[in-house]
Amino acid sequence: MTASHHLHGHLIGQPGSRDQLNTPALIVDLDALRANIAAMAAFARAAGVALRPHAKTHKSADIARLQIAAGAAGLCCAKLGEAEALAAEGIGSILLTSPIVTPPAIERLIALNDRLPHLTVVADHPAAVAALATANTGRPIRVLVDIDPGIHRTGTASAQDAVALARQIADAPCLTYGGVQFYCGSQQHIATFAERRAAIADRTAYLQTVIAALTDAGLAPPVVTGGGTGTHRIDAELGVLTELQVGSYAFMDREYHDCDLGTSFATALMVDTRVISANRPGMATLDAGLKSFATEAGVPVFVAGAPDGGTYRFMGDEHGAVTVPAGATTPPLGTRLTAMTPHCDPTVNLHDAYHVVQGDTLVAIWPITARGRSA
Amino acid sequence: MTASHHLHGHLIGQPGSRDQLNTPALIVDLDALRANIAAMAAFARAAGVALRPHAKTHKSADIARLQIAAGAAGLCCAKLGEAEALAAEGIGSILLTSPIVTPPAIERLIALNDRLPHLTVVADHPAAVAALATANTGRPIRVLVDIDPGIHRTGTASAQDAVALARQIADAPCLTYGGVQFYCGSQQHIATFAERRAAIADRTAYLQTVIAALTDAGLAPPVVTGGGTGTHRIDAELGVLTELQVGSYAFMDREYHDCDLGTSFATALMVDTRVISANRPGMATLDAGLKSFATEAGVPVFVAGAPDGGTYRFMGDEHGAVTVPAGATTPPLGTRLTAMTPHCDPTVNLHDAYHVVQGDTLVAIWPITARGRSA
Repeated sequence: MTASHHLHGHLIGQPGSRDQLNTPALIVDLDALRANIAAMAAFARAAGVALRPHAKTHKSADIARLQIAAGAAGLCCAKLGEAEALAAEGIGSILLTSPIVTPPAIERLIALNDRLPHLTVVADHPAAVAALATANTGRPIRVLVDIDPGIHRTGTASAQDAVALARQIADAPCLTYGGVQFYCGSQQHIATFAERRAAIADRTAYLQTVIAALTDAGLAPPVVTGGGTGTHRIDAELGVLTELQVGSYAFMDREYHDCDLGTSFATALMVDTRVISANRPGMATLDAGLKSFATEAGVPVFVAGAPDGGTYRFMGDEHGAVTVPAGATTPPLGTRLTAMTPHCDPTVNLHDAYHVVQGDTLVAIWPITARGRSA
Repeated sequence: MTASHHLHGHLIGQPGSRDQLNTPALIVDLDALRANIAAMAAFARAAGVALRPHAKTHKSADIARLQIAAGAAGLCCAKLGEAEALAAEGIGSILLTSPIVTPPAIERLIALNDRLPHLTVVADHPAAVAALATANTGRPIRVLVDIDPGIHRTGTASAQDAVALARQIADAPCLTYGGVQFYCGSQQHIATFAERRAAIADRTAYLQTVIAALTDAGLAPPVVTGGGTGTHRIDAELGVLTELQVGSYAFMDREYHDCDLGTSFATALMVDTRVISANRPGMATLDAGLKSFATEAGVPVFVAGAPDGGTYRFMGDEHGAVTVPAGATTPPLGTRLTAMTPHCDPTVNLHDAYHVVQGDTLVAIWPITARGRSA
C-alpha cells in the first residue's frame, strides 16, 4: 500500500480523475502499454526468438504479469533484490543479468533458487563460479557465461576465458551450464538505424567467434540472450540471439524517441506536473524537479499542457520550469502539464506507484514492486 | 519495515557488521552526524538565530528528532507529502517551503494543520492565498510571504507585491501573517567564500528593502527565514534572517566539500559499493550506478577502499566503475569501496534506509520516512 493508494485510491474509476491527482504523478497510459507489450510479443513470435523483458525498466509485478500473459518466457532482473521482490509476487522465471559475487549475495541467490521455479544467473569470473559451486549443495542453479561485448562493464574478456568458465560451470555438480549472455548496452542508443546496425553486426561477428569456440569445446550454448529495445530488429535479423532482453519498449522515453523507435512503440510513461509559481514573464515553475525525473539523459519533453515550443528546465530537487517562446501564453497557476520522461528506468525508480490511466480516468494504482531494490 | 530491515536487522550491534551489508548500501556515520548536528546547533545558539533544518535533505524522522533534541525549532519540508510523513512520526513543527496552490493540495494542507501543533506555509501569489483563505474555515494557518531573491523559482517579484500579499494574508480571517521567506538557492554553491559573501550581501540588501516596505505598511515580519549550509555564516553575520533553513550540513557531500565547508562539517553520508566484475586492467565494475547516486552534480568521490587516485565513473543504471592510475592495483572481485555522495538530497531519495554505523559496526537501520514523497 503506497502513499498514493491512500491519497488517490478513492479516485479509481471516476471519469476525469487524472486531473485530481496530486502532482508530480508518474502516469502509465494503459492502452499504450498494452499495445507496446502486444507489438513486441508479436514481433518476437514472428522472428522465432524468445522474449524475456527486462524488469529493471518497470520493477512492477503487474507489468511483468502482462508481459508473461502476452507470451514472455520470463523476466530479467538486474539485481538480486529486484528478483526477490518480483519472486515474492509470483513471477516464476527470472534471469539475473548481473554477476553475484559476494558471500551474503550468494547465500540469498541459493535461497531464491530453492523457492523459484526457474532461476538463471550470469557469471564472468572463475572465483565467483567457484564460490557459487562450493556454496550450493542443493538444487542446481543454471548459470550463463556473460560475454563482454566491448563496453567493459561485465563479461569475460575473450573466447578463451568464456570456454574456460563454461567448462567450470558444466563440471560443477550443483551448477547447470545454460549458455551465454551478450548485452550491447552502449549500442542501444546510437541515433541512426544504419549506424546502430553496423555496430551490432560488428559485435555479433565477435559473438559468433565465441560461440564457435564454445561449440568446438563441446559447450554449444543452448541459450544466447541479450539485445535491447534499440537493437531488437537488428538482433532478430542477424539471428544469433535466441532470447531478447528488451525493457524500455513497454514505456518508451525521450531517449528512444530520439532514436527513431517512436514509430514502433507509443509513449506509455509520463509525469504529470503542475504550475505552482507564475510570477515572471515567459516562464512558470513546476512541482517536478530532479526527484521526479532522472537527470542523466537530458530533459523531459512536454506532450500536453504546454504551449507549442514550451521547454522544460530543471530548477533543483523539487522544481522545474516551463519556458515559453516569445508571444506564447505562460501557463497560469495550477495548470497541469504532461512530460515524456528523459530515461524511463531511473525515472521509474524515483517513484513509488504508477497511476494507470485510460483517457483521463485513473483506472488503477500499481506499486513499483522492486523500487530501490539495487542490492 | 524496509527490505533492508529484513536483510540486515540481525546484523545490528555485531562488531564488523558493516562489511556484511549487501551493497550498494547508504551509510550514515552516527558520530559524524551527531557532531554535525551539535556544531550547527551551537553555531545558531551563539549567533542568536533560530534553527529550522530542512528535511528535504534527509527525509528522516530519526534525524529530525536528533535535530530537535539539539535545539532546532522545528523542521522545513519541501512538499506536502514530506510533511505528512514526518507529522505521522510525531514531528510537531513544520514549515512548508514551497507554495501550495491546487485544490487537492489545499485540502490536505488544512487537514494537516488541524492535526499538527505548528504548521506554517509559504505563498507567493494572490490567487493561492485567496483559495486558501476561502477553503480554510477552521484553525488559522500561518502563512509567510515568499520573496524571490532573483532565481525566479518561487517568490513574489517585488516589494510592492510582497506588501500586497502580506496584507491579503493579514486580512484573511483564518490565515495568520507570519513573516517572510527568502531562500538564495543558487548562491549556496558559489565555490569561494568571498564571492559567496558578496552575492549574499547584495541579495540581503534587496531583502532589506522589502522588509522596510513591509514595516512601513505596518507588516513588519515576525519571522525572516532562509539561508542554507553554504551561506549560514554569512547569513548570521549579516543579521537579517531570524531563522536558518540549513539542510546538507548534517551529511555533507562532494558539492559542499568543494565549497570549503568540509572544514566545518564531517562527511557523515556515504555509499558502500563492491567490485562485481574485474576482467580488465586498470578498472573494475561496481554494483552502484545511477540508481544509487544522484547524477546531476558530478561524480562520487572514494573515501575508502580505492587505491590513491582511483576515480568513479558512471556505467549505467546499476553499475559504476573504479578507474585506477597506472601502476596501482585494481581492487579485486568483492572489494568494498566507500564513496562520498555527489549531492546528498537526491541521492538519499534513491534509497529506502540508512545503515547507521559506528566504526565498522551497524548500530541501527533508519527508514527514509518521506522517501519519494514529492507530491
